[in-house]
Amino acid sequence: MAPVAPRSGDAIFASVEHVNAELFTLTYGAIVRQLLTDLEEVEEVNKQLDQMGYNIGVRLIDEFLAKSSVSRCVDFKETADVIAKVGFKMFLGVSASVSNWDADGTCCSIVLEDNPLVDFVELPDTCQGLYYCNILSGVIRGALEMVSMKTEVTWVRDMLRGDDAFELQVKLLKQVPEEYPYKDDE
Amino acid sequence: MAPVAPRSGDAIFASVEHVNAELFTLTYGAIVRQLLTDLEEVEEVNKQLDQMGYNIGVRLIDEFLAKSSVSRCVDFKETADVIAKVGFKMFLGVSASVSNWDADGTCCSIVLEDNPLVDFVELPDTCQGLYYCNILSGVIRGALEMVSMKTEVTWVRDMLRGDDAFELQVKLLKQVPEEYPYKDDE
Repeated sequence: MAPVAPRSGDAIFASVEHVNAELFTLTYGAIVRQLLTDLEEVEEVNKQLDQMGYNIGVRLIDEFLAKSSVSRCVDFKETADVIAKVGFKMFLGVSASVSNWDADGTCCSIVLEDNPLVDFVELPDTCQGLYYCNILSGVIRGALEMVSMKTEVTWVRDMLRGDDAFELQVKLLKQVPEEYPYKDDE
Repeated sequence: MAPVAPRSGDAIFASVEHVNAELFTLTYGAIVRQLLTDLEEVEEVNKQLDQMGYNIGVRLIDEFLAKSSVSRCVDFKETADVIAKVGFKMFLGVSASVSNWDADGTCCSIVLEDNPLVDFVELPDTCQGLYYCNILSGVIRGALEMVSMKTEVTWVRDMLRGDDAFELQVKLLKQVPEEYPYKDDE
Protein backbone atom coordinates (compact mmCIF):
# COMPACT_ATOMS: atom_id res chain seq x y z
CA MET A 1 0.00 0.00 0.00
CA ALA A 2 1.35 3.42 -0.90
CA PRO A 3 2.16 5.56 2.12
CA VAL A 4 -0.45 8.15 2.95
CA ALA A 5 0.85 11.70 2.42
CA PRO A 6 0.85 13.87 5.51
CA ARG A 7 -2.04 16.33 5.49
CA SER A 8 -1.68 20.05 5.96
CA GLY A 9 -2.48 21.58 9.33
CA ASP A 10 -5.34 23.53 7.78
CA ALA A 11 -6.90 20.48 6.20
CA ILE A 12 -6.70 18.51 9.42
CA PHE A 13 -8.04 21.36 11.51
CA ALA A 14 -10.99 21.65 9.15
CA SER A 15 -11.76 17.95 9.46
CA VAL A 16 -11.80 17.55 13.23
CA GLU A 17 -14.52 18.34 15.75
CA HIS A 18 -14.37 21.83 17.22
CA VAL A 19 -15.51 23.90 20.10
CA ASN A 20 -15.69 27.67 20.40
CA ALA A 21 -12.27 29.17 21.09
CA GLU A 22 -13.62 31.67 23.60
CA LEU A 23 -15.16 28.89 25.66
CA PHE A 24 -11.78 27.18 25.65
CA THR A 25 -9.99 30.40 26.60
CA LEU A 26 -12.34 31.07 29.49
CA THR A 27 -12.20 27.46 30.65
CA TYR A 28 -8.42 27.56 30.64
CA GLY A 29 -8.53 30.85 32.54
CA ALA A 30 -10.76 29.19 35.13
CA ILE A 31 -8.15 26.45 35.62
CA VAL A 32 -5.35 28.93 36.15
CA ARG A 33 -7.42 30.95 38.59
CA GLN A 34 -8.36 27.80 40.47
CA LEU A 35 -4.74 26.73 40.76
CA LEU A 36 -3.70 30.19 41.93
CA THR A 37 -6.33 29.99 44.66
CA ASP A 38 -5.53 26.43 45.71
CA LEU A 39 -1.75 26.42 45.48
CA GLU A 40 -0.92 30.04 46.34
CA GLU A 41 2.70 29.82 45.16
CA VAL A 42 3.08 30.92 41.54
CA GLU A 43 5.97 28.49 41.13
CA GLU A 44 3.69 25.61 42.12
CA VAL A 45 1.05 26.78 39.64
CA ASN A 46 3.66 26.75 36.87
CA LYS A 47 4.59 23.18 37.79
CA GLN A 48 1.01 22.03 37.98
CA LEU A 49 0.08 23.56 34.62
CA ASP A 50 3.08 21.88 33.06
CA GLN A 51 2.08 18.55 34.59
CA MET A 52 -1.51 18.91 33.38
CA GLY A 53 -0.18 19.69 29.93
CA TYR A 54 2.07 16.67 30.05
CA ASN A 55 -0.89 14.42 30.86
CA ILE A 56 -2.83 15.94 27.97
CA GLY A 57 0.13 15.62 25.59
CA VAL A 58 0.59 11.90 26.20
CA ARG A 59 -3.01 11.39 25.09
CA LEU A 60 -3.24 14.02 22.38
CA ILE A 61 -0.37 12.44 20.44
CA ASP A 62 -2.66 9.54 19.49
CA GLU A 63 -5.21 11.89 17.94
CA PHE A 64 -2.39 13.72 16.27
CA LEU A 65 -0.87 10.62 14.66
CA ALA A 66 -4.26 9.22 13.69
CA LYS A 67 -5.59 12.40 12.07
CA SER A 68 -2.44 13.89 10.59
CA SER A 69 -1.10 10.85 8.71
CA VAL A 70 2.30 12.04 9.88
CA SER A 71 4.54 9.01 10.26
CA ARG A 72 7.95 8.79 11.85
CA CYS A 73 9.92 12.03 11.48
CA VAL A 74 13.46 11.54 10.22
CA ASP A 75 15.01 13.77 12.85
CA PHE A 76 14.33 16.33 15.54
CA LYS A 77 14.34 19.13 12.97
CA GLU A 78 11.46 17.60 11.10
CA THR A 79 9.70 16.91 14.39
CA ALA A 80 9.90 20.55 15.44
CA ASP A 81 8.54 21.66 12.07
CA VAL A 82 5.64 19.26 12.33
CA ILE A 83 4.76 20.50 15.83
CA ALA A 84 4.79 24.11 14.68
CA LYS A 85 3.08 23.75 11.29
CA VAL A 86 0.72 20.83 11.87
CA GLY A 87 0.35 20.37 15.64
CA PHE A 88 -0.47 23.93 16.64
CA LYS A 89 -2.76 24.35 13.68
CA MET A 90 -4.57 21.10 14.34
CA PHE A 91 -5.28 21.77 17.99
CA LEU A 92 -5.35 25.52 18.51
CA GLY A 93 -6.08 26.65 14.96
CA VAL A 94 -2.96 28.84 14.82
CA SER A 95 0.38 28.22 13.25
CA ALA A 96 3.79 28.69 14.72
CA SER A 97 7.27 29.02 13.29
CA VAL A 98 10.55 27.37 14.14
CA SER A 99 13.80 29.31 14.52
CA ASN A 100 17.03 29.67 16.51
CA TRP A 101 18.43 26.22 15.78
CA ASP A 102 21.63 25.42 17.59
CA ALA A 103 24.59 23.96 15.67
CA ASP A 104 23.88 20.29 16.35
CA GLY A 105 20.15 20.48 15.64
CA THR A 106 18.94 19.52 19.12
CA CYS A 107 17.58 22.85 20.33
CA CYS A 108 15.24 25.34 18.68
CA SER A 109 12.54 27.86 19.34
CA ILE A 110 8.86 27.55 18.48
CA VAL A 111 7.41 31.03 18.08
CA LEU A 112 3.71 31.80 18.35
CA GLU A 113 2.35 35.17 17.36
CA ASP A 114 -1.27 34.29 17.89
CA ASN A 115 -2.25 32.40 21.01
CA PRO A 116 -5.91 31.75 21.81
CA LEU A 117 -5.08 30.92 25.43
CA VAL A 118 -4.41 34.53 26.29
CA ASP A 119 -7.31 36.38 24.66
CA PHE A 120 -8.61 38.95 27.17
CA VAL A 121 -6.00 37.91 29.74
CA GLU A 122 -4.16 40.47 31.82
CA LEU A 123 -2.05 39.35 34.71
CA PRO A 124 -2.32 41.25 37.98
CA ASP A 125 0.92 42.28 39.70
CA THR A 126 0.52 39.46 42.19
CA CYS A 127 1.11 36.98 39.35
CA GLN A 128 4.63 38.02 38.44
CA GLY A 129 6.53 34.85 37.73
CA LEU A 130 3.48 33.00 36.41
CA TYR A 131 3.90 31.24 33.08
CA TYR A 132 0.25 31.48 32.18
CA CYS A 133 0.55 29.23 29.13
CA ASN A 134 2.68 26.61 30.81
CA ILE A 135 0.19 23.95 29.84
CA LEU A 136 1.53 24.25 26.28
CA SER A 137 5.09 23.40 27.25
CA GLY A 138 3.76 20.37 29.10
CA VAL A 139 1.70 19.24 26.11
CA ILE A 140 4.76 19.34 23.82
CA ARG A 141 6.93 17.53 26.37
CA GLY A 142 4.29 14.84 26.97
CA ALA A 143 3.54 14.29 23.30
CA LEU A 144 7.22 14.03 22.37
CA GLU A 145 7.90 11.58 25.17
CA MET A 146 5.34 9.25 23.60
CA VAL A 147 7.40 9.23 20.42
CA SER A 148 10.56 8.52 22.41
CA MET A 149 11.99 12.02 22.66
CA LYS A 150 12.85 13.33 26.09
CA THR A 151 12.78 17.11 25.92
CA GLU A 152 13.00 20.16 28.09
CA VAL A 153 10.57 22.90 27.10
CA THR A 154 10.92 26.40 28.53
CA TRP A 155 9.51 29.86 27.85
CA VAL A 156 11.90 32.39 26.36
CA ARG A 157 9.39 35.10 25.47
CA ASP A 158 5.89 35.66 26.80
CA MET A 159 3.56 38.42 25.61
CA LEU A 160 1.87 38.51 29.00
CA ARG A 161 5.24 39.60 30.37
CA GLY A 162 5.58 42.34 27.78
CA ASP A 163 7.50 40.44 25.10
CA ASP A 164 6.58 40.73 21.43
CA ALA A 165 5.73 37.04 20.91
CA PHE A 166 5.44 33.71 22.67
CA GLU A 167 8.62 31.71 22.27
CA LEU A 168 9.17 28.21 23.59
CA GLN A 169 12.63 26.72 23.61
CA VAL A 170 12.51 23.00 22.91
CA LYS A 171 15.68 21.12 23.76
CA LEU A 172 16.14 17.45 22.89
CA LEU A 173 17.73 15.73 25.89
CA LYS A 174 17.64 12.13 24.82
CA GLN A 175 16.18 10.10 22.01
CA VAL A 176 15.19 6.63 23.14
CA PRO A 177 15.18 3.99 20.41
CA GLU A 178 11.57 3.22 19.63
CA GLU A 179 10.16 -0.12 20.62
CA TYR A 180 6.93 -1.05 19.00
CA PRO A 181 4.52 -3.55 20.41
CA TYR A 182 4.12 -4.88 16.86
CA LYS A 183 6.75 -5.06 14.19
CA ASP A 184 6.04 -3.32 10.90
CA ASP A 185 6.09 -6.54 8.87
CA GLU A 186 3.84 -8.55 11.13
CA MET B 1 -32.61 50.70 11.51
CA ALA B 2 -34.30 47.36 10.88
CA PRO B 3 -33.69 44.82 13.64
CA VAL B 4 -31.04 42.25 12.80
CA ALA B 5 -32.49 38.76 12.48
CA PRO B 6 -31.08 36.20 14.91
CA ARG B 7 -28.61 33.89 13.22
CA SER B 8 -28.79 30.11 13.35
CA GLY B 9 -26.56 28.22 15.74
CA ASP B 10 -24.80 26.57 12.82
CA ALA B 11 -24.08 29.85 11.08
CA ILE B 12 -22.71 31.40 14.25
CA PHE B 13 -20.62 28.37 15.10
CA ALA B 14 -19.12 28.47 11.61
CA SER B 15 -18.20 32.12 12.00
CA VAL B 16 -16.39 32.05 15.34
CA GLU B 17 -12.84 31.04 16.18
CA HIS B 18 -12.39 27.39 17.10
CA VAL B 19 -10.10 25.01 18.84
CA ASN B 20 -9.92 21.25 18.54
CA ALA B 21 -12.66 19.55 20.56
CA GLU B 22 -10.38 16.80 21.81
CA LEU B 23 -7.98 19.35 23.24
CA PHE B 24 -10.91 20.94 25.03
CA THR B 25 -12.16 17.58 26.30
CA LEU B 26 -8.75 16.64 27.65
CA THR B 27 -8.23 20.06 29.17
CA TYR B 28 -11.57 19.85 30.91
CA GLY B 29 -10.68 16.36 32.12
CA ALA B 30 -7.47 17.76 33.56
CA ILE B 31 -9.46 20.33 35.55
CA VAL B 32 -11.76 17.73 37.00
CA ARG B 33 -8.85 15.48 37.93
CA GLN B 34 -7.06 18.41 39.53
CA LEU B 35 -10.10 19.32 41.60
CA LEU B 36 -10.58 15.71 42.69
CA THR B 37 -6.97 15.65 43.88
CA ASP B 38 -7.08 19.02 45.61
CA LEU B 39 -10.52 18.95 47.17
CA GLU B 40 -10.97 15.23 47.85
CA GLU B 41 -14.72 15.49 48.55
CA VAL B 42 -16.77 14.83 45.42
CA GLU B 43 -19.44 17.18 46.70
CA GLU B 44 -16.89 20.00 46.85
CA VAL B 45 -15.75 19.23 43.31
CA ASN B 46 -19.34 19.52 42.11
CA LYS B 47 -19.62 22.91 43.79
CA GLN B 48 -16.34 24.15 42.42
CA LEU B 49 -17.14 23.06 38.84
CA ASP B 50 -20.47 24.83 39.10
CA GLN B 51 -18.77 27.98 40.38
CA MET B 52 -16.16 27.89 37.59
CA GLY B 53 -18.96 27.49 35.10
CA TYR B 54 -20.82 30.41 36.64
CA ASN B 55 -17.76 32.63 36.23
CA ILE B 56 -17.43 31.53 32.62
CA GLY B 57 -21.15 32.05 31.95
CA VAL B 58 -21.17 35.65 33.15
CA ARG B 59 -18.49 36.42 30.56
CA LEU B 60 -19.63 34.14 27.76
CA ILE B 61 -23.01 35.85 27.60
CA ASP B 62 -21.34 38.91 26.07
CA GLU B 63 -19.88 36.87 23.22
CA PHE B 64 -23.21 35.17 22.84
CA LEU B 65 -25.21 38.39 22.54
CA ALA B 66 -22.62 40.00 20.28
CA LYS B 67 -22.29 37.09 17.83
CA SER B 68 -25.80 35.68 17.82
CA SER B 69 -27.77 38.88 17.18
CA VAL B 70 -30.28 37.45 19.63
CA SER B 71 -31.99 40.32 21.39
CA ARG B 72 -34.27 40.23 24.40
CA CYS B 73 -36.27 37.00 24.59
CA VAL B 74 -39.99 37.52 25.18
CA ASP B 75 -40.21 34.94 27.95
CA PHE B 76 -38.42 32.10 29.68
CA LYS B 77 -39.69 29.63 27.07
CA GLU B 78 -37.97 31.47 24.30
CA THR B 79 -34.86 31.83 26.43
CA ALA B 80 -34.64 28.07 26.99
CA ASP B 81 -35.05 27.44 23.27
CA VAL B 82 -32.29 29.88 22.45
CA ILE B 83 -29.92 28.25 24.94
CA ALA B 84 -30.60 24.81 23.51
CA LYS B 85 -30.65 25.64 19.80
CA VAL B 86 -28.20 28.53 19.55
CA GLY B 87 -26.11 28.54 22.73
CA PHE B 88 -25.02 24.91 22.79
CA LYS B 89 -24.38 24.94 19.07
CA MET B 90 -22.39 28.14 19.22
CA PHE B 91 -20.07 27.06 22.01
CA LEU B 92 -19.88 23.27 21.96
CA GLY B 93 -20.92 22.61 18.37
CA VAL B 94 -23.80 20.36 19.42
CA SER B 95 -27.48 21.05 19.67
CA ALA B 96 -29.81 20.29 22.50
CA SER B 97 -33.57 20.02 22.82
CA VAL B 98 -36.04 21.44 25.30
CA SER B 99 -38.77 19.36 26.91
CA ASN B 100 -40.72 18.67 30.11
CA TRP B 101 -42.19 22.13 30.55
CA ASP B 102 -44.17 22.61 33.72
CA ALA B 103 -47.63 24.17 33.60
CA ASP B 104 -46.59 27.75 34.33
CA GLY B 105 -43.63 27.78 31.94
CA THR B 106 -40.94 28.34 34.56
CA CYS B 107 -39.24 24.94 34.56
CA CYS B 108 -38.01 22.77 31.72
CA SER B 109 -35.38 20.26 30.73
CA ILE B 110 -32.52 20.79 28.30
CA VAL B 111 -31.52 17.44 26.85
CA LEU B 112 -28.14 16.77 25.26
CA GLU B 113 -27.50 13.59 23.36
CA ASP B 114 -24.03 14.51 22.24
CA ASN B 115 -21.66 16.04 24.75
CA PRO B 116 -18.03 16.70 23.82
CA LEU B 117 -17.06 17.07 27.48
CA VAL B 118 -17.36 13.36 28.11
CA ASP B 119 -15.60 11.80 25.12
CA PHE B 120 -13.36 8.97 26.40
CA VAL B 121 -14.44 9.62 29.98
CA GLU B 122 -15.17 6.77 32.34
CA LEU B 123 -15.66 7.46 36.00
CA PRO B 124 -13.96 5.19 38.52
CA ASP B 125 -16.05 3.85 41.40
CA THR B 126 -14.46 6.38 43.72
CA CYS B 127 -16.22 9.15 41.83
CA GLN B 128 -19.79 8.12 42.54
CA GLY B 129 -21.70 11.30 43.19
CA LEU B 130 -19.58 13.39 40.84
CA TYR B 131 -21.44 15.53 38.35
CA TYR B 132 -18.64 15.52 35.83
CA CYS B 133 -20.28 18.11 33.57
CA ASN B 134 -21.30 20.43 36.36
CA ILE B 135 -19.47 23.28 34.68
CA LEU B 136 -22.33 23.36 32.14
CA SER B 137 -25.00 23.97 34.75
CA GLY B 138 -22.87 26.80 36.12
CA VAL B 139 -22.41 28.36 32.68
CA ILE B 140 -26.17 28.44 32.09
CA ARG B 141 -26.85 29.83 35.56
CA GLY B 142 -24.17 32.52 35.18
CA ALA B 143 -25.20 33.54 31.69
CA LEU B 144 -28.88 33.79 32.63
CA GLU B 145 -28.11 35.84 35.70
CA MET B 146 -26.52 38.42 33.41
CA VAL B 147 -29.82 38.78 31.59
CA SER B 148 -31.67 39.13 34.90
CA MET B 149 -32.91 35.58 35.33
CA LYS B 150 -32.11 33.83 38.59
CA THR B 151 -32.24 30.11 37.94
CA GLU B 152 -31.51 26.81 39.57
CA VAL B 153 -29.90 24.30 37.23
CA THR B 154 -29.63 20.63 38.22
CA TRP B 155 -28.80 17.34 36.54
CA VAL B 156 -31.69 14.94 36.03
CA ARG B 157 -29.96 12.43 33.74
CA ASP B 158 -26.25 11.83 33.21
CA MET B 159 -24.83 9.31 30.74
CA LEU B 160 -21.74 8.86 32.92
CA ARG B 161 -24.13 7.51 35.55
CA GLY B 162 -25.72 5.11 33.11
CA ASP B 163 -28.61 7.26 31.89
CA ASP B 164 -29.51 7.44 28.21
CA ALA B 165 -28.89 11.19 27.81
CA PHE B 166 -27.73 14.30 29.62
CA GLU B 167 -30.68 16.21 31.01
CA LEU B 168 -30.44 19.50 32.84
CA GLN B 169 -33.44 20.87 34.66
CA VAL B 170 -33.56 24.65 34.46
CA LYS B 171 -35.91 26.31 36.89
CA LEU B 172 -36.62 30.03 36.82
CA LEU B 173 -36.60 31.33 40.39
CA LYS B 174 -36.90 35.04 39.84
CA GLN B 175 -36.88 37.43 36.96
CA VAL B 176 -35.36 40.75 37.93
CA PRO B 177 -36.57 43.70 35.87
CA GLU B 178 -33.71 44.67 33.61
CA GLU B 179 -31.93 47.91 34.25
CA TYR B 180 -29.78 49.14 31.44
CA PRO B 181 -26.91 51.50 31.90
CA TYR B 182 -28.11 53.25 28.71
CA LYS B 183 -31.64 53.69 27.51
CA ASP B 184 -32.55 52.32 24.09
CA ASP B 185 -33.33 55.71 22.65
CA GLU B 186 -30.23 57.46 23.86
